[in-house]
Amino acid sequence: MRPRIADVWGAILADAFAGKPSQEIVERDDGFVMAFDASYLLAPFEDWDDADERRAMRFVRGRVLDVGCGGGRVCLQLQKRGLGVVGIDSSQGAVAVSIDRGVRDARVLDVDAVDPSLGLFDTVVMLGQNFGMLGSRTRARRLLERFALVTTPRGRIVAETFNPHALDDPVQQKYRERNLRRGRMPGQLRVRVRYRDLATRWLDWLQVSPEELVQLLEGTGWQLARTLGNGPSYIAILEKVEPRGNARRP
Amino acid sequence: MRPRIADVWGAILADAFAGKPSQEIVERDDGFVMAFDASYLLAPFEDWDDADERRAMRFVRGRVLDVGCGGGRVCLQLQKRGLGVVGIDSSQGAVAVSIDRGVRDARVLDVDAVDPSLGLFDTVVMLGQNFGMLGSRTRARRLLERFALVTTPRGRIVAETFNPHALDDPVQQKYRERNLRRGRMPGQLRVRVRYRDLATRWLDWLQVSPEELVQLLEGTGWQLARTLGNGPSYIAILEKVEPRGNARRP
Repeated sequence: MRPRIADVWGAILADAFAGKPSQEIVERDDGFVMAFDASYLLAPFEDWDDADERRAMRFVRGRVLDVGCGGGRVCLQLQKRGLGVVGIDSSQGAVAVSIDRGVRDARVLDVDAVDPSLGLFDTVVMLGQNFGMLGSRTRARRLLERFALVTTPRGRIVAETFNPHALDDPVQQKYRERNLRRGRMPGQLRVRVRYRDLATRWLDWLQVSPEELVQLLEGTGWQLARTLGNGPSYIAILEKVEPRGNARRP
Repeated sequence: MRPRIADVWGAILADAFAGKPSQEIVERDDGFVMAFDASYLLAPFEDWDDADERRAMRFVRGRVLDVGCGGGRVCLQLQKRGLGVVGIDSSQGAVAVSIDRGVRDARVLDVDAVDPSLGLFDTVVMLGQNFGMLGSRTRARRLLERFALVTTPRGRIVAETFNPHALDDPVQQKYRERNLRRGRMPGQLRVRVRYRDLATRWLDWLQVSPEELVQLLEGTGWQLARTLGNGPSYIAILEKVEPRGNARRP
């Protein structure tokens, strides 16, 4: 029997919020599995164990769109700082937990449905590896162009990803090579998340090196301003390319 | 693609021993998944977070057979107490880690291969849910009879299991009912353990309530002397039934 397709993130977050131990189990299409304790999803800023994430929050300014807000940990911290923030998540259960925890504006919305009706943002945040949501080369470029439309000229994207080339064990190498042979990006993971008897659908989860990111951004209106972090996991700060003929005067 | 059938426990233990975060992911045949942090496998006695397990160690005496010794946490504690202990595990990697950690007698041996050539034991230990290894009603009875042959008349079994009826959510209820319809014990789980790209074969993992245990023991030469623990997880202390006509005299 197969796991039931359902709101996995909602179930994980509801259990974590109720104080139950819960883990997200990520299964890749080559049979590779990983488990992550879900408590980080609800951690207050002070307890974020990724120092780069805490540091990245300094780059968040103005009106903010938190893409994949989960249990609202990023929204809550930004609200505390007095910023206006809209959290979106495709999981109804995640949004329910965010609201319960005090997020003032969390909406059930797929990243594909982001459009100017949400208003303009100064920063788009994708922490917690949420860059992965961009999925594939094509989808990433489409969504980045979409983000350009909903951001101000000083718009910024603060996104966390993972350099897939940093893992040199044979299993990971083989997976990247298989992806390349199939015309996919090396770090384009085909995964689903499982929890208890539930699973998400299989989806593409994109991981890129800084070099791959620079290439990916070409023509999207975004450029890599800087990266934070020295590990395989790192945070990219993207800023808008100044439009042609609009360069700053000395 | 499917995960590769390999020495999963060896891989988990080797990584945990090297200080890498590692989790055992248990997948049930209905698609239900669970993850457990593997650090408990190497925990020193003082850090065992299951108080019942610590308490159960007081019932361990004489020469000991530790069935499914894993990383040797039970063996090491018993050696410290001066007991003679033989650890067996079907995982070559587990035995290697046990030896590396100081277990003096750990052997690669399947529980089915236990026989009098190992000598006689006063206690057979199956902590860490290792009762599950007994698999099914038939297999359990066969192995319990086997344990009777390799134990002294004062022989004891100290085994940890889990009362499957303690979980009343619909998914678990349905699983127990499906088992019953198929002539299996309600808590006879069909599972495999996964870690990274590896998996065990699918196997039966038996969980029983104290009442089911009493029934299961009938005619095996063993009886339930007492249980430790009030949670779903509990430890059974089994002792030998005194042979007929050999009752103690006043």
